[in-house]
Amino acid sequence: MEQEFASSLLENAVSEFASLPGIGRKTALRLVLHLLKRDEPEVTAFGEAIIKLRREIGYCRVCHNISESEVCPICSSGLRDHSTVMVVENVKDVMIVENTRQHAGVYHVLGGLISPMDGIGPQDIEIDSLVERVAGGEVKEVILALPATMEGDTTSFYIYRRLAPHASRVAVTVLARGVSVGSGLEYTDELTLGRSIAGRTPFDASM
Amino acid sequence: MEQEFASSLLENAVSEFASLPGIGRKTALRLVLHLLKRDEPEVTAFGEAIIKLRREIGYCRVCHNISESEVCPICSSGLRDHSTVMVVENVKDVMIVENTRQHAGVYHVLGGLISPMDGIGPQDIEIDSLVERVAGGEVKEVILALPATMEGDTTSFYIYRRLAPHASRVAVTVLARGVSVGSGLEYTDELTLGRSIAGRTPFDASM
Repeated sequence: MEQEFASSLLENAVSEFASLPGIGRKTALRLVLHLLKRDEPEVTAFGEAIIKLRREIGYCRVCHNISESEVCPICSSGLRDHSTVMVVENVKDVMIVENTRQHAGVYHVLGGLISPMDGIGPQDIEIDSLVERVAGGEVKEVILALPATMEGDTTSFYIYRRLAPHASRVAVTVLARGVSVGSGLEYTDELTLGRSIAGRTPFDASM
Repeated sequence: MEQEFASSLLENAVSEFASLPGIGRKTALRLVLHLLKRDEPEVTAFGEAIIKLRREIGYCRVCHNISESEVCPICSSGLRDHSTVMVVENVKDVMIVENTRQHAGVYHVLGGLISPMDGIGPQDIEIDSLVERVAGGEVKEVILALPATMEGDTTSFYIYRRLAPHASRVAVTVLARGVSVGSGLEYTDELTLGRSIAGRTPFDASM
């Protein structure tokens, strides 16, 4: 959609919104025209929230999750099990797992996955710091909670090999793959169904 | 989706994006995490573009389109036909019509439509200024290019009545309604098809 804008201010704002993933110029224009109708203090607060976000946010020195303090609230909590570390791809995964309230341990955020196609190697993500953390001695279990994709599997396998020297003391586990809770067999892809058969578990009448 | 954020900076930015029309908290989080990965100067420019947009943008004194000068480039152009004024709902409509390159005249942006349901009356949109403009004497035709909705039709009818005192000198026209160019009859709704039959035009072999 070619468009001539009446104003370079408008043009700039539309271009910025259109630079976000999944937002085209048409949607960007709609968002910008919406902002123009809002009160000035509100719009200023929006702009400042974006600037402060990037300028002031920090990352936890231990797990690399987003944090405003040097060590994040999860890593500094006395209520969490610091011997169980869940390895996830990104910050969003931490939030998703936290919402399940099923993980009492701590996290390690890789900040990406090994992907030779995209030129991302082990040194580009937080694997060395994970190995160091495990070598520290406090960790007893590393849960690899990476996506079931080629990149996720490659990264899991690489981490597994790097942690091999500590195998006598540290268990490396992965999330169970299987049929979704509440979902019928007809909605499950064959690969997942196959894995869920191979990985079948004893019937638990209490569930 | 309930989520606990590791940072109030993150929470604020997500809330701001989620306040935009059509953007939920899930999408907002995705956009914010994307911004976190970008370089700081880029993200600062994004925030500043939003702040400047609302703070510095102005509206044309004549047609109420967005403008950085007191009178917009269209209204101050010697190449446009100032006797033909197209009345549109909003700034976006001006861009859409300009892209067709079929309107050589000028515009009048109402900034909304009469909508008793939403408490928007004639005094809330730029109708008085349109009537004044027409009373000025230079205008020979007013093209009502408002949407074919109840609000659009109500607004068109109201403007038509307000301009009645100038009817001897000023033609009031509306956009032709009909079958879309390149579209078959089976894709046209009955109302539009009915109107396009009633408003049939002589066959033009040159089209």
